[in-house]
Amino acid sequence: MNEIEELSGLSFRISIIGFGAVGQGLAKVLLSKRETLQRMGIDIRVVAIADSVSLLKGSEGIDLEKALQAKEVSGRVGEEIDTGDGAREVLESVEHDLMVEATPTDIRSGEPALTHILRALASGKHVVTSNKGPFIHNHATLIETARKNDLMLRYEATVGGAMPIINLIQENLAGNTIERIEGVLNGTCNYILTRMADERLDYQHALLEAQELGIAEADPSYDVMGIDSASKLVILANTAYENDATFDDVKITGITEITPEALELAEKNGYTIRLIGEATRDRLVVAPKLVSKRHPLAIRGTLNIATIHTDLSKTITVSGAGAGSIETASAILSDIIHIYKRHEIKKGGGD
Amino acid sequence: MNEIEELSGLSFRISIIGFGAVGQGLAKVLLSKRETLQRMGIDIRVVAIADSVSLLKGSEGIDLEKALQAKEVSGRVGEEIDTGDGAREVLESVEHDLMVEATPTDIRSGEPALTHILRALASGKHVVTSNKGPFIHNHATLIETARKNDLMLRYEATVGGAMPIINLIQENLAGNTIERIEGVLNGTCNYILTRMADERLDYQHALLEAQELGIAEADPSYDVMGIDSASKLVILANTAYENDATFDDVKITGITEITPEALELAEKNGYTIRLIGEATRDRLVVAPKLVSKRHPLAIRGTLNIATIHTDLSKTITVSGAGAGSIETASAILSDIIHIYKRHEIKKGGGD
Repeated sequence: MNEIEELSGLSFRISIIGFGAVGQGLAKVLLSKRETLQRMGIDIRVVAIADSVSLLKGSEGIDLEKALQAKEVSGRVGEEIDTGDGAREVLESVEHDLMVEATPTDIRSGEPALTHILRALASGKHVVTSNKGPFIHNHATLIETARKNDLMLRYEATVGGAMPIINLIQENLAGNTIERIEGVLNGTCNYILTRMADERLDYQHALLEAQELGIAEADPSYDVMGIDSASKLVILANTAYENDATFDDVKITGITEITPEALELAEKNGYTIRLIGEATRDRLVVAPKLVSKRHPLAIRGTLNIATIHTDLSKTITVSGAGAGSIETASAILSDIIHIYKRHEIKKGGGD
Repeated sequence: MNEIEELSGLSFRISIIGFGAVGQGLAKVLLSKRETLQRMGIDIRVVAIADSVSLLKGSEGIDLEKALQAKEVSGRVGEEIDTGDGAREVLESVEHDLMVEATPTDIRSGEPALTHILRALASGKHVVTSNKGPFIHNHATLIETARKNDLMLRYEATVGGAMPIINLIQENLAGNTIERIEGVLNGTCNYILTRMADERLDYQHALLEAQELGIAEADPSYDVMGIDSASKLVILANTAYENDATFDDVKITGITEITPEALELAEKNGYTIRLIGEATRDRLVVAPKLVSKRHPLAIRGTLNIATIHTDLSKTITVSGAGAGSIETASAILSDIIHIYKRHEIKKGGGD
């Protein structure tokens, strides 16, 4: 065995499917953390990157700096693909251990991520994803497919960017019964509500400001109608209750009807209004609610926060940046490292 | 192989060393979670319990209900031991996989927990502990001993009871550089400060109230002098920075000199006073600080809270019950489950 083969036997090979903000964020994080990972004894090698029109392969490890540059200059990461299905080609032609699914979210169909993830699991790859789509209608299928294939499927990045909550529920609170989860799960809505209260702006003006700052999208409906919050709530609930709730199980009210007068009245009485997602085993609701200004859920700005009510650990609250490509990539990286470590134990075998 | 042997081959055997509030809390939690654990496919069997004067063994699994009852009735969990060293006897005479170290904390010597943990690791046992003592002067030795023996040493319960922070730093924030940690790490101090501000009590009156409610000890110095906060800060810093800081590296000021006038002045300006522990790579300080009432660290009552400032994930905040035997036992249980799962992977081998 020559030295190169030996090396590639030791490294953990990943593919990145989807090379938008999150995929590129992950490439940047892997570049900036090269030394940290080396110090941790972790050798992660990206062996394929696919965007919607092109594909880049490199079994010895792709030069991520070049890949980012190519994407910036040409809009494509690699060679154009005729099939239009880079993910399939990667799975069929590139040996690797883990797929990072980072294509854009489609909350209705879950596609193309759903197909990518199921195919990856069927062909022996672990999966880490930031894509909410697949989990909103097919949570149980995904979890069961991973389990059946003895592979890991991690999705911390789907809810609240870097806010650690999925793995918190699954690991730190292992053994606890989750009684209720409530949280502010959308930074755009929270920014708009914070500004409306602070500056007595009406909804339209606060939205415009958020759009100018890049906090709200040109079409803000996904956020302000509560759709994004509802999607995250479904994922949290299914994680906590091992249910198979879907998006259609959530009763949703957005923030578009909230008036400055309502906020002013709330503030006068020591309250404010927040868009709260609340999950119990039987009930999923996203709606604006009065929250005492002293309450942790009265969080300000674009932060996300969630409180988990449990039997043993009582009430645990976590908050953090709800979005951002680097924050999301950080959650993906910690999931990759988690899988890497388990993978190493398995390879090592014995006890 | 008969059925009993087969069963005991599959179960995960633990010993509990120290059977005070935390040890008994763990026994209660294991009892109340028997079905939950079964559903998770987890078979944990307590095969030895030692308190400071007695020892109870049972290779097929101790009846925890009876053990709790015996302790309550007689003050002893089992047979008196002549040697006065139940932990040693357990390690020498009881086959098991993991030791839970739950003896009382001695922050000066770290004993007897330090010896228990090092011996357990030397004899092939994983360790989970709630005891701060061993980590305040010997963090690096403990981590290195576990590593060298290819065993796991988990200590989530040492800081902030059920507040998930050790494993958060080590796992969810894996790959991140921790720039700074700041937190309210002692519920007793925080209760006293909250009451002083709300009711304009002086320190002595608020302390008395806390003692009457069982929130403060008869001798409150460990809490109010900042010693407990400093101990937790050392553990957090060593976890985040892989340093070997000790208790003597912390600059400590307690809350005993805070006056109602100082709090009143702070409140008038939208601030309050909190006992804040702050850690960077080079500097460990526990001291009362002005905190904006809108800031998450202005948390109220006996809760603990910590904010972790990182490069990738930006700012992550967690809060939860800082103490309580069931909350602490919950953190111990999640550490046991974590080790159990890795242990199962190793036994399974292959990929």
